[in-house]
Amino acid sequence: MLAYELHNEPDFAALTRVERPSPPLSPHDVRVRVRAVSLNYRDLNIARSMQRRPKGRPVVPASDGAGEVVEIGSAVSRLATGDRVAALFFPDWHDGELTAVYHTRALGGTCDGMLAEEVVLDERAWVRLPAHLSYEEGATLPCAGVTAWNALFESAGVGPGSTVLVQGTGGVSIFALQLAKAAGAQVVVTSKSDAKRARARQMGADHVIDYVATPKWGDDARAWTGGRGVDVVVEVGGPGTFDQSVAALRHAGTMSLLGVLTGLSGEVNTYGLFQKGLHVCGIYVGSGRMFEALNRALSTNTIHPVIDRVFGFDQVRAAYEHLASGTHFGKVVIRVS
Amino acid sequence: MLAYELHNEPDFAALTRVERPSPPLSPHDVRVRVRAVSLNYRDLNIARSMQRRPKGRPVVPASDGAGEVVEIGSAVSRLATGDRVAALFFPDWHDGELTAVYHTRALGGTCDGMLAEEVVLDERAWVRLPAHLSYEEGATLPCAGVTAWNALFESAGVGPGSTVLVQGTGGVSIFALQLAKAAGAQVVVTSKSDAKRARARQMGADHVIDYVATPKWGDDARAWTGGRGVDVVVEVGGPGTFDQSVAALRHAGTMSLLGVLTGLSGEVNTYGLFQKGLHVCGIYVGSGRMFEALNRALSTNTIHPVIDRVFGFDQVRAAYEHLASGTHFGKVVIRVS
Amino acid sequence: MLAYELHNEPDFAALTRVERPSPPLSPHDVRVRVRAVSLNYRDLNIARSMQRRPKGRPVVPASDGAGEVVEIGSAVSRLATGDRVAALFFPDWHDGELTAVYHTRALGGTCDGMLAEEVVLDERAWVRLPAHLSYEEGATLPCAGVTAWNALFESAGVGPGSTVLVQGTGGVSIFALQLAKAAGAQVVVTSKSDAKRARARQMGADHVIDYVATPKWGDDARAWTGGRGVDVVVEVGGPGTFDQSVAALRHAGTMSLLGVLTGLSGEVNTYGLFQKGLHVCGIYVGSGRMFEALNRALSTNTIHPVIDRVFGFDQVRAAYEHLASGTHFGKVVIRVS
Amino acid sequence: MLAYELHNEPDFAALTRVERPSPPLSPHDVRVRVRAVSLNYRDLNIARSMQRRPKGRPVVPASDGAGEVVEIGSAVSRLATGDRVAALFFPDWHDGELTAVYHTRALGGTCDGMLAEEVVLDERAWVRLPAHLSYEEGATLPCAGVTAWNALFESAGVGPGSTVLVQGTGGVSIFALQLAKAAGAQVVVTSKSDAKRARARQMGADHVIDYVATPKWGDDARAWTGGRGVDVVVEVGGPGTFDQSVAALRHAGTMSLLGVLTGLSGEVNTYGLFQKGLHVCGIYVGSGRMFEALNRALSTNTIHPVIDRVFGFDQVRAAYEHLASGTHFGKVVIRVS
Repeated sequence: MLAYELHNEPDFAALTRVERPSPPLSPHDVRVRVRAVSLNYRDLNIARSMQRRPKGRPVVPASDGAGEVVEIGSAVSRLATGDRVAALFFPDWHDGELTAVYHTRALGGTCDGMLAEEVVLDERAWVRLPAHLSYEEGATLPCAGVTAWNALFESAGVGPGSTVLVQGTGGVSIFALQLAKAAGAQVVVTSKSDAKRARARQMGADHVIDYVATPKWGDDARAWTGGRGVDVVVEVGGPGTFDQSVAALRHAGTMSLLGVLTGLSGEVNTYGLFQKGLHVCGIYVGSGRMFEALNRALSTNTIHPVIDRVFGFDQVRAAYEHLASGTHFGKVVIRVS
Repeated sequence: MLAYELHNEPDFAALTRVERPSPPLSPHDVRVRVRAVSLNYRDLNIARSMQRRPKGRPVVPASDGAGEVVEIGSAVSRLATGDRVAALFFPDWHDGELTAVYHTRALGGTCDGMLAEEVVLDERAWVRLPAHLSYEEGATLPCAGVTAWNALFESAGVGPGSTVLVQGTGGVSIFALQLAKAAGAQVVVTSKSDAKRARARQMGADHVIDYVATPKWGDDARAWTGGRGVDVVVEVGGPGTFDQSVAALRHAGTMSLLGVLTGLSGEVNTYGLFQKGLHVCGIYVGSGRMFEALNRALSTNTIHPVIDRVFGFDQVRAAYEHLASGTHFGKVVIRVS
Repeated sequence: MLAYELHNEPDFAALTRVERPSPPLSPHDVRVRVRAVSLNYRDLNIARSMQRRPKGRPVVPASDGAGEVVEIGSAVSRLATGDRVAALFFPDWHDGELTAVYHTRALGGTCDGMLAEEVVLDERAWVRLPAHLSYEEGATLPCAGVTAWNALFESAGVGPGSTVLVQGTGGVSIFALQLAKAAGAQVVVTSKSDAKRARARQMGADHVIDYVATPKWGDDARAWTGGRGVDVVVEVGGPGTFDQSVAALRHAGTMSLLGVLTGLSGEVNTYGLFQKGLHVCGIYVGSGRMFEALNRALSTNTIHPVIDRVFGFDQVRAAYEHLASGTHFGKVVIRVS
Repeated sequence: MLAYELHNEPDFAALTRVERPSPPLSPHDVRVRVRAVSLNYRDLNIARSMQRRPKGRPVVPASDGAGEVVEIGSAVSRLATGDRVAALFFPDWHDGELTAVYHTRALGGTCDGMLAEEVVLDERAWVRLPAHLSYEEGATLPCAGVTAWNALFESAGVGPGSTVLVQGTGGVSIFALQLAKAAGAQVVVTSKSDAKRARARQMGADHVIDYVATPKWGDDARAWTGGRGVDVVVEVGGPGTFDQSVAALRHAGTMSLLGVLTGLSGEVNTYGLFQKGLHVCGIYVGSGRMFEALNRALSTNTIHPVIDRVFGFDQVRAAYEHLASGTHFGKVVIRVS
């Protein structure tokens, strides 16, 4: 089968198409013909940084993919051939809280990922796709969709009448916009692009802020709520946006912290956190149970993930470059087969 | 001012219109001109049962009312004359869990209620009405609306993709239907009336069950979910419906228990509760904070309470009799002034 | 190897010693030489009731056992030979909430249990014993210990200054007494036996009640708390004790419901549940994560399970009869090898 | 009556003894003869920083005090003369989450505090002292004691077998040590002083770290837990200690953030927060309900607050200077009358 591997080259030139043998199948394993893969910001970092890859062997990149079950092991009871499935970002995290051991197997990072024609994983590492989604749409769920779910409904309790602020219009933020609107919440979106703000409006955003024109966008968001503050911020920026998120939040509100767009560390206002009695929840994707809850939410509300552009399996570097350009709105997808 | 009191007469004949002096106003008090009152099943019980009323003095009935602030005490800072408000069922329960002391002041039960032209309560016992609601609509919120909110969003975490079962089409159940749909959930409604089931469908119910034709409606509901079971049951029936609610629920699901329509006690399946690892949450209305959260939900989603019929202030007994007939769909309201 | 099976005989005569082949070992499996088994009330029910056993084949009884790892599969990474371990009651419930699928594999019920010289299970179905416990002590943990942990610390938040009521002096109740005292809580114990009440006192019970002399023991417990009520009741009786548990609890308190000693169903006071805003949590043992948390609690506080009596592997029926007699205080154990 | 006020002088010279009229008493008010006051780090900041005091009038400093009820208003039902009480840090925060409005009345900050012979507050702003505590001991509870309670048992779920790390040996940290031990947890204490570490050991600390000799004390703490990490850090340092706290914590652990000893903001590792899925809970004292829960914990476990030194009412500046010196272990108290 064909697959991409990250080889010892600078930047996206590391992405190398190779022929690999079909992986073997143990009794509890399920073999999936991958149909589509979607990219995340994390995939850019791993492609660019050799430190973040396993040592001594090339790794197949990309955590997020969907496909069709083509073979099942002798002990498999939960899936059948023909099932349409996506893989868990952490194949071993089925339920409960994050533990250190799950990090030892993360698709496209500490173990081989989805950018391949075939992937074999334990039956519990797969979840069925919602029936109304295509493979391209399903491929966007494992990281961005599950992260947005976790940020809104596991780490916080977003519901009707809640107010949620999302930063920008990347994959997680757009999922969060869609899910929060489906939950009956109000949503504030920040973006420096007129066109993206307009599109966010069309998707239901109740208030949009140009964060370049309004550097104190946190104060603006709080003022828009009548001074009370927003209930939840989906914090994808990290240290560079942290303090305005603190400013935006109501007392006892929740910052769902999941991104590094502005860096791994930086100066932040820790006093504000306790003066307001805030909760900061670090979010690293989520469990299989959360993925299934996300799928029920998407099905019940007929939500379609927003796909920015679909690339072919021979356009992988172009897909990475497009995501790196930051011009996208929603998800960047690669059709595999 | 005019008010109704419960006098020492059998049944609804106890409802007696009297002239009362205007209540005095302390520094933290707010005087409200009541415009509308809504009735709850509890009001029927209190009118019929002398044991449930305070001894030695007539009590003004009805917990739920809305009106206009006409005078504020010298120390009042949260409200102003002209504000449109409703009262808390428990005037002292502002936040946190239910405690015994809140029961010592429950409107229309252990202290005077809302069926009067004027009511004076501490400023913290009032919440502002959502701007899109009339007084008649606002009068339905304090007990039925807050109870439904508590049942879905405080005692359980209903959100997009959840499945909720509501029993019948009384006030709490219809609020629960509206709120659960606003939250992106699926809703199952039981009713023996073809017309009421059809109306529930129109309001968004995803599945309806005739509980007379299908006595094992719990099994039917579970089957409709594909065997998984519903996440939450809003249990208004009590012991007579309890076991089918257990049957309907998924493992680790929640029964929000709040009603006595079938009695105060009865034989129930306690084994099922722990075999399934269920949570039963007893719900007695809710706090001021919950009321404010409900109002944000109603405003954000432009939800209008369903009013079955509005009676005049001189038709109070007829209003009670209409509620007692069980033919209503939604709330029975009395216009006061 | 030797094992007991439940054969088609009335009552404890069903317990039959047989020779079985050593079970095979898959790559993720761990083979354990069982050293000790403890009995639970559930084991009596299963031995007595043919309906509760798998059809068409004899089942090895008993969920709770401890032993030594004697062989590991080729892919096992978490355990090594020589490790001292106990099995999970539900071998597939590692973390998160109870789901229906876990019930399809419950040791000594829907699948073979621990009353055998050797048991083979997936590596994740075993947890290491605390170092200070013997095998006999370790064998008491999987059902009774984990259930008590779940009742106090997962379904409720028992901590310093909490008040807990435990019913009787069976296995779960004595664990709950020990763990609640270790958590800095006050404990009320009910027992009809003077000797058992005295022993509970010695173990730290702050208040004891003779439930025969004081049939309204719930009122007595509430009075002992100064009228506030207890925070948590560990409800092992079921319907026959339910109403006094409701009476004992404070408003918004928690009943951890886990037993059927007085029946599978019965008449209970559902009104009291919502008048007090109570939480009833059905508890069916617990997950592997809970088991590990229990073990840390036992280790940190050097708690030794209370063993009533240890029987030999050739005294299995006598062990069952002793438990059935109800004269025990703490756990009944069988030494296997 | 005599009282201290913060006047327009540099540093602790601002502390000025004055004669004030006895405050008037409204119907719901309670007059307390203050017997003892304790100091917190916050009191030093307010004394030193004119920006943190109300404008245009001198404020009575200090949030924490205890005394005897000497007069009650006509409508008071919860307290009687002779009752031994302490005041809530936030007199209006009785239950539920922190809201912005509570900050508008904080004793010794936004409103007059306890360093006076008499204080009048609404009856709900007082809680009864545990019977086993002196007034000096009781005066240490409102800020330091309640904060420690909130950090361990409200924001986290510390129980038997948990591991807690506390920084240093100030008031909150010593309360946290005592309460965590009472809860059956293990405790790690950091201190640069040999004598203080030895004393922490005597009080039950399971592991102590010299943070000067071991700058990576977070790694040391995690190693001491066998690599798993601690469950909870009571973070009193702020930005300067934040990253080692992240290093110390287990995945999905909780940082209870409540201090500014190293500054109001600074560079921190936000990546670590989400890589580990951590929860950061900002803690600003706590509610009246939490205070009552603390008192039950202290009573049940006969815990006495650790008092470093008691000063006279004419030694107030010396008391402030002693706290500022950082040589204390536990609380600094002023006897008022």
